[in-house]
Amino acid sequence: MIRVGIIGVGRIGRLHTENICYNVPMAKVVSIADPFMSEDTEKWANNLGITKCYKDYNNILNDKEVDAVFICSSTNTHAPISIEAIEAHKHVFCEKPVDLSIEKIVEVMEVLKHKDIKYQVGFNRRFDHNFKAVRDAVANNKIGDPHIMRITSRDPAPPPIEYVKVSGGLFLDMTIHDFDMARYLVDSDVKEIFVQADVLVDDAIGEVGDVDTAIVSMKMENGTLAIIENSRKAVYGYDQRVEILGSQGMVGTKNDLPSTAVISNENGVTGEKPLHFFLERYMDSFKKEVIAFVDAINNDTPVPVDINDGLKSVIIGMAAKKSLEEGRPVKISEIKL
Amino acid sequence: MIRVGIIGVGRIGRLHTENICYNVPMAKVVSIADPFMSEDTEKWANNLGITKCYKDYNNILNDKEVDAVFICSSTNTHAPISIEAIEAHKHVFCEKPVDLSIEKIVEVMEVLKHKDIKYQVGFNRRFDHNFKAVRDAVANNKIGDPHIMRITSRDPAPPPIEYVKVSGGLFLDMTIHDFDMARYLVDSDVKEIFVQADVLVDDAIGEVGDVDTAIVSMKMENGTLAIIENSRKAVYGYDQRVEILGSQGMVGTKNDLPSTAVISNENGVTGEKPLHFFLERYMDSFKKEVIAFVDAINNDTPVPVDINDGLKSVIIGMAAKKSLEEGRPVKISEIKL
Amino acid sequence: MIRVGIIGVGRIGRLHTENICYNVPMAKVVSIADPFMSEDTEKWANNLGITKCYKDYNNILNDKEVDAVFICSSTNTHAPISIEAIEAHKHVFCEKPVDLSIEKIVEVMEVLKHKDIKYQVGFNRRFDHNFKAVRDAVANNKIGDPHIMRITSRDPAPPPIEYVKVSGGLFLDMTIHDFDMARYLVDSDVKEIFVQADVLVDDAIGEVGDVDTAIVSMKMENGTLAIIENSRKAVYGYDQRVEILGSQGMVGTKNDLPSTAVISNENGVTGEKPLHFFLERYMDSFKKEVIAFVDAINNDTPVPVDINDGLKSVIIGMAAKKSLEEGRPVKISEIKL
Amino acid sequence: MIRVGIIGVGRIGRLHTENICYNVPMAKVVSIADPFMSEDTEKWANNLGITKCYKDYNNILNDKEVDAVFICSSTNTHAPISIEAIEAHKHVFCEKPVDLSIEKIVEVMEVLKHKDIKYQVGFNRRFDHNFKAVRDAVANNKIGDPHIMRITSRDPAPPPIEYVKVSGGLFLDMTIHDFDMARYLVDSDVKEIFVQADVLVDDAIGEVGDVDTAIVSMKMENGTLAIIENSRKAVYGYDQRVEILGSQGMVGTKNDLPSTAVISNENGVTGEKPLHFFLERYMDSFKKEVIAFVDAINNDTPVPVDINDGLKSVIIGMAAKKSLEEGRPVKISEIKL
Repeated sequence: MIRVGIIGVGRIGRLHTENICYNVPMAKVVSIADPFMSEDTEKWANNLGITKCYKDYNNILNDKEVDAVFICSSTNTHAPISIEAIEAHKHVFCEKPVDLSIEKIVEVMEVLKHKDIKYQVGFNRRFDHNFKAVRDAVANNKIGDPHIMRITSRDPAPPPIEYVKVSGGLFLDMTIHDFDMARYLVDSDVKEIFVQADVLVDDAIGEVGDVDTAIVSMKMENGTLAIIENSRKAVYGYDQRVEILGSQGMVGTKNDLPSTAVISNENGVTGEKPLHFFLERYMDSFKKEVIAFVDAINNDTPVPVDINDGLKSVIIGMAAKKSLEEGRPVKISEIKL
Repeated sequence: MIRVGIIGVGRIGRLHTENICYNVPMAKVVSIADPFMSEDTEKWANNLGITKCYKDYNNILNDKEVDAVFICSSTNTHAPISIEAIEAHKHVFCEKPVDLSIEKIVEVMEVLKHKDIKYQVGFNRRFDHNFKAVRDAVANNKIGDPHIMRITSRDPAPPPIEYVKVSGGLFLDMTIHDFDMARYLVDSDVKEIFVQADVLVDDAIGEVGDVDTAIVSMKMENGTLAIIENSRKAVYGYDQRVEILGSQGMVGTKNDLPSTAVISNENGVTGEKPLHFFLERYMDSFKKEVIAFVDAINNDTPVPVDINDGLKSVIIGMAAKKSLEEGRPVKISEIKL
Repeated sequence: MIRVGIIGVGRIGRLHTENICYNVPMAKVVSIADPFMSEDTEKWANNLGITKCYKDYNNILNDKEVDAVFICSSTNTHAPISIEAIEAHKHVFCEKPVDLSIEKIVEVMEVLKHKDIKYQVGFNRRFDHNFKAVRDAVANNKIGDPHIMRITSRDPAPPPIEYVKVSGGLFLDMTIHDFDMARYLVDSDVKEIFVQADVLVDDAIGEVGDVDTAIVSMKMENGTLAIIENSRKAVYGYDQRVEILGSQGMVGTKNDLPSTAVISNENGVTGEKPLHFFLERYMDSFKKEVIAFVDAINNDTPVPVDINDGLKSVIIGMAAKKSLEEGRPVKISEIKL
Repeated sequence: MIRVGIIGVGRIGRLHTENICYNVPMAKVVSIADPFMSEDTEKWANNLGITKCYKDYNNILNDKEVDAVFICSSTNTHAPISIEAIEAHKHVFCEKPVDLSIEKIVEVMEVLKHKDIKYQVGFNRRFDHNFKAVRDAVANNKIGDPHIMRITSRDPAPPPIEYVKVSGGLFLDMTIHDFDMARYLVDSDVKEIFVQADVLVDDAIGEVGDVDTAIVSMKMENGTLAIIENSRKAVYGYDQRVEILGSQGMVGTKNDLPSTAVISNENGVTGEKPLHFFLERYMDSFKKEVIAFVDAINNDTPVPVDINDGLKSVIIGMAAKKSLEEGRPVKISEIKL
């Protein structure tokens, strides 16, 4: 039984907490910490059988009963808390991104080196049933050598503009998931990237220096040509699809739907919109990533998504930004550690 | 080159005429006949290169240049004209049904016996790409022994009530196609039939003694259990699907659509309605049945749909009517020739 | 917090137990009972925090701490334990069927009368996302008046022959779910039923006096014509679909799949088989039916599936058997209480 | 009745000839010309009622009976024959591309200027039912302003290497259709293009200096971001799809199939591969483009695809080649006329 402390109980921290309580029998949340700890939050935790609720996460790091921490606090705290947690000999599950700065991620890597600590990054989509089926098809040589990969990734609506400002921009906030997915699906790193992007959804996003619509073309190290299509707003809902053409076949996925019901009438044949957003769409993958993390601790096996994966996705994001700024393809090797 | 005379140039007669002119290089329409022959019709025929236009079909039967006739006149004339045509040594393509009376069909069969005449009945759906693919899957043992067959057959809107009156009723007018399809798909005759039916679409149909909605359950001679679903009105359009469960798999079809375009928006994910009605839906099968008829003449091979098929479907229709009237399952063997 | 005792911890009893432990925060399993209680079972229960494990279910009925019992024992014990539980003032969740005999169900109903007890029957499929979407489409008048309803319900493989012997037969064991579904979807009782059925899958099933393949046609009280298609063996997996044609449109569902991944290669375009069997397919509905039961207790509202629903489905099953035996349509009113 | 001469009766010339004979009642092929005119070809023509068969196309140009010519000869003769035909006062239907050199297309445009001649270029895909439905959805504002457009265009197998050598390369031979499609679908010109491409299918293609797999990203003048995915080899067949995300919705198409039949068995749920190649897939569009050309002549209205469209697609192709050669995005305005 792995004893877990949750650092940061905003939306994603609460999700992990409830997941562990309800769906991960071999782990147990023993404490939570959040600078904005409120009575309501304490009550919510107590109902889940969690009695230790702190404002200061150091109470968790100092607790010898705690085996592992989930870092679900704001992005700028991920790296420093990671380092403190590692030094306190806790296994770490860190939400993505590890940091918006490459230097800080490398610092965490340095501290982690030679330590007997499991450090997993929260790229939950790797655990999604659809994407895993695609990865399996590729890995099991069902489609031969991958030639063209396409990732369609569109949100139902842009986040609040205040969030956009501190998000690190489209590529480090949203596309970062797709960069990791691209690496995962064909088991290869990115070699070169070119971006065309614009502000087509909401001028306010442009005013804070970001873009909301992008097409990304990439060459992977293994020769695959790859495309990512991003939009901050698809009115029909959360659009999460991939397709890979290989030398021996193609594999592709469709969106998951609330139900398979289809109504045919004088207006046409109408099915449901995709599951609304990432909580509905990826709930099952959030469970599975935590189970994988707990398994890695229990069996002392490598975590399925490590800090190197966390670093790589940020580097690709940096290259994407550079491509957009300079209007040219950028080699990943141009981004210095 | 087979020289064809068309008897009756209403909707279906014109369709066959144009089909032969445009799509059947090895046949040629040399004459048409219709009691309501008009100047407009003659002009239409002349534009197609047809110069002989008669009111009296005997002019066609007496024309030694004519190899084959298409009987597209009103149903009650099919049998007598068939007999005259056979006696005039013409090959015959007769629209369905051959007649609404079993006796008259048997009379035609008698006249046909030992004659070197090709006689094909217009069950065009056997030539449809979708249904043929299902038949091929069954025939090629892709699904093993058929266990449950379902035929969904629904019109977009009821015919005019004047037509309903003389149509022979739902089972002999509309379901007759499905009876033939059932026999064709699993290559077996019907053994027993039970019908539940009602007037759910339009009271006027009930007032003339017919029904507009029916579910038909049948046992086939080969043991397959079969269902036909009929409605005179599906607001989303012409619904023509089949599905067969077998011991080793299932084969099913969807409707054909005007285009594959799908629009996703806040209201859902909407594709097109099925192709509107039988002319759009089955146009290609009308071509193919005529080509098959011409081939049978040219190669002196059996026609793919013979008068026995025409007879069987009417017998099943009679059994269906009897089942509805008497509220019980009816064995096909109860219907006397 | 509703305190629950589970009577019978075979497959379905364990499922409900784990469901309540993991997914129903407002209920708690406090005890289990099973005549075959083993050390392994006790260990399993202890891991879930359940300490009271009995061989004799009377220990549960006599426990004042217990608010509600789940009757998951063998079918022939459902009715007597129901009566005892009601008399012990426990709310009851009873697995389907309540009994194979109408008389015994009526006895339970008599005991239940005027008691302030919630009694829910385990027709979990009503809580399935797909079927609920169809019911909602009908209830919200999205398709107008229902004309033709079809329920396709096929198992991936027959149960062991020992089970078939005591199952009550296809209609009371398998089709009973579909009878309930038919009533639920169009909110109407069955008026008349006709069955064609045979042994097409496995001769052994015939040898014990049952059938394995059936088509059922029904007239509903509200005029809907209904079809059920049953097979004990669909090699492609668990097939659970419904379709309703109405005066203003059609609503239909497809099967749920393990993933949406589709592989296109030289052999065609291939998607996954349906979710394998009822545990995978209906897991979510098992959660929801229990939540609905607990809510009904907590809010003192009617249960969504009551003993009357349990009775009706058995009556229809009896009529189905009679139809098959006598080879004729049977009115539901012919089945005497 | 438009009298047509066909110049070049290879595959595409024969296709147009038969199309006009069978499917275009308001046109008539009166003569054909081909330097490799053979007895077989003459026989084929005679069977279609065409008696004038020449080796020298000047016989057609000098024939006052001829109203229009179809230029279906080899690409390098399109421009000079176009000029001669225009000067002979013939309407011209010219297969794509008009020429591989921009200068020569401009020469044809010069000769065409101020002439009362219809000149249509053979971008038949604009007349395809699926793509037209997408264009209509955009034009009728069903999806709002287009944001991201994707064109998937993959051949079932590469052409013979001898053809590849003289084809002008992937972008001028294959992608040229997609460039025209991009312009057509969102009714806007291309502004900037970037290409990533490689030899992944067949080394022989690389040895003659061409590529076989490409992803093309473009900015359209109206702000749409666009992607084209090309492969010379999709083992599952001819893959022709488009998808456009707009501010108010998305529209997308699927491939057309030989039939809708789907087989479900232990291996999965398998539908048919796409229609094999362009002849099967686009047959209907070949008819429609010719009908549109004949209508433009008869009604003296503009042709739906004019020489400017022919020029634009070649210019984009030149920019694509430059982007690949120089490894950078290229503005269309960089390509000089």
